[in-house]
Amino acid sequence: MATHKLLLLPGDGIGPEVMREVEKIVGWFRKRGVGFETETDLVGGAAYDAHGAAISEAAMDRAQQADAVLFGAVGGAKWDSVPYAVRPEAGLLRLRKDLGLFANLRPAICYPALADASSLKREVVEGLDIMIVRELTGGVYFGEPKEIVTLEDGSQRAVDTQIYHTHEVERIARVAFDLAKKRRNKVSSAEKFNVMKTGVFWRQVVTRIHKGEFSDVELEHVLADNCAMQLVRWPKQFDVIVTDNLFGDILSDIAAMLTGSLGMLPSASLGAEDPVTGQRKALYEPVHGSAPDIAGKGLANPIAMIGSFGMALRYSFGLLDEADRLDKAIANVLASGTRTKDIAAPGTNAVGTQDVGDAIVKEL
Amino acid sequence: MATHKLLLLPGDGIGPEVMREVEKIVGWFRKRGVGFETETDLVGGAAYDAHGAAISEAAMDRAQQADAVLFGAVGGAKWDSVPYAVRPEAGLLRLRKDLGLFANLRPAICYPALADASSLKREVVEGLDIMIVRELTGGVYFGEPKEIVTLEDGSQRAVDTQIYHTHEVERIARVAFDLAKKRRNKVSSAEKFNVMKTGVFWRQVVTRIHKGEFSDVELEHVLADNCAMQLVRWPKQFDVIVTDNLFGDILSDIAAMLTGSLGMLPSASLGAEDPVTGQRKALYEPVHGSAPDIAGKGLANPIAMIGSFGMALRYSFGLLDEADRLDKAIANVLASGTRTKDIAAPGTNAVGTQDVGDAIVKEL
Ligand SMILES: CC(C)[C@H](C(=O)O)[C@@H](O)C(=O)O
Ligand SMILES: CC(C)[C@H](C(=O)O)[C@@H](O)C(=O)O
Repeated sequence: MATHKLLLLPGDGIGPEVMREVEKIVGWFRKRGVGFETETDLVGGAAYDAHGAAISEAAMDRAQQADAVLFGAVGGAKWDSVPYAVRPEAGLLRLRKDLGLFANLRPAICYPALADASSLKREVVEGLDIMIVRELTGGVYFGEPKEIVTLEDGSQRAVDTQIYHTHEVERIARVAFDLAKKRRNKVSSAEKFNVMKTGVFWRQVVTRIHKGEFSDVELEHVLADNCAMQLVRWPKQFDVIVTDNLFGDILSDIAAMLTGSLGMLPSASLGAEDPVTGQRKALYEPVHGSAPDIAGKGLANPIAMIGSFGMALRYSFGLLDEADRLDKAIANVLASGTRTKDIAAPGTNAVGTQDVGDAIVKEL
Repeated sequence: MATHKLLLLPGDGIGPEVMREVEKIVGWFRKRGVGFETETDLVGGAAYDAHGAAISEAAMDRAQQADAVLFGAVGGAKWDSVPYAVRPEAGLLRLRKDLGLFANLRPAICYPALADASSLKREVVEGLDIMIVRELTGGVYFGEPKEIVTLEDGSQRAVDTQIYHTHEVERIARVAFDLAKKRRNKVSSAEKFNVMKTGVFWRQVVTRIHKGEFSDVELEHVLADNCAMQLVRWPKQFDVIVTDNLFGDILSDIAAMLTGSLGMLPSASLGAEDPVTGQRKALYEPVHGSAPDIAGKGLANPIAMIGSFGMALRYSFGLLDEADRLDKAIANVLASGTRTKDIAAPGTNAVGTQDVGDAIVKEL
């Protein structure tokens, strides 16, 4: 039987505690005969403290060898003033870039049982199910020049550069259209073509791919600022939203916050399929961050992290039955009222991080 | 008595109809002896149709001569495929740049009477009063290179460049801190210092200005993506938010949409004070766009445009009593239930654009 190599990178803040719960789930599947091999390494502030870098070369090698990386979260005030090149986030950005994880899939789902946790009115978010497809290895995150220079008069100038190439926009557009076909068949492409040349270009390429390969899918173009507004006004108008790295960062966070289920939302970052083996590199992480304020207190909701492992079962290993089984166990535990503080129903007792993990294992 | 020169640029879509209502208000003040001189010119798609440019040189000259510009809105599907350099938005961008309007003030206020129009829960937005201070003449909107180039293999590369200089960040930070002192004394500075060098730089300069000149004002730094989330989660945590041109575009739109009062929100774009005359160039415009879908139907809410004229009374002409009087007239008309469709209370009849303008004049 095939053995799936998992690299666990818990990172900082609540990363380690939510990752421990995933290990329980992995353990359960392993006992039932699914071949998982796990290794664990450091990333982010934890890696900086140990090695002076946000991820070590050894950890990068392991990530390259792994069939999937499970990533917790990185960052925290403790490392706010470390040099830019070794800040915690650099570890995550290097993983994305070096593994070629260009497609970031961020579902924003509002669980009916949790709709009241949203700051939006129930009718606006109940049943919401949208997918943000964010380009993850290009744009302003990686373009050069990216620098702060001191000028002759002593003042300074800072520069970032947003660059997109044809193939980068083509491939992310294809991911979005492919996903839409399995969903409600609509893609909204967000950019600022009225002020950015990369926006003009984005719109052109997406339009061409649509016309040539996916003319049966509905496509609309929306300005990124208007998209943010529309997400707040009536998010159910969207199915799949495809957008660049920076707009995707913001729009996916808005979408996640709408649902009231931030501690519930997983994400997948996928590379290109190898034309020979059909394999693709992949990293799975919760949408939430490292939440330093509640770290170490057993308060964190592990479901986003566990759901991220569920996405790995589905997208990396083709273990669809196992993925369904896990999703169902999560849903049952939620329904039973075993919930952490962030999603506890009014008048019920919140349980700890470990209790939720244990309950899901039991339910499995 | 001093005569104030106003240039009216109605623009496209609902721009002309909401501007007509402002003219009534200006007329009322003129009859009561306040010296206003108005000129009107074209901008946006309307200017393109007439002159092949998004604003003519003659209109730019008039804008330079005016004490304040009142701007309606620009754009619409009709001009989606005109050449990039003459697209409707280019007129607005040139006005901002050539008049040096670096400080964009966008209040987001939730009128209690309208709180139910928000998609957010009443308790989340009722009484909301935040001010977004957006840098308006720098960043990715204007940096070069900004181009699409065709490479040797026939594929293309698109580039935009975000640039900030020391003095640009210093002056917008001062505007934000000054405003905060007259409000609830708190500034939240939003950037992405974890991925952008302009973010690192922004944070450094804001911190320095704070330390040197405004240490009595509370300052917090917040990541732009988290700021978007927090605006959705609990917007009342903010007082003044200061941010760059692109983040400001998105964050101010989110803030506006939260209030449920999009058709109500004015904005001011201000230049630097002339050290000799104390005068500053200024442009006032509603936060909403050209809304082509309802243009020409008499449905548009003119209050954002009229309120923008109120900001001109206050910020450009120091006519504080007149500004208060206008604000009060608007509030009374709202309270009386004379409202356009976007803000009509359930079960009441909506009135037209002109009715609201007439009612405000009557109330004055
Ligand atoms: C941690 C940070 C570098 C990252 C990003 O900006 O991409 C995060 O906000 C995210 O969305 O995954
Ligand atoms: C019309 C457009 C160029 C403009 C911008 O992006 O600045 C608008 O969205 C705004 O916020 O004023």
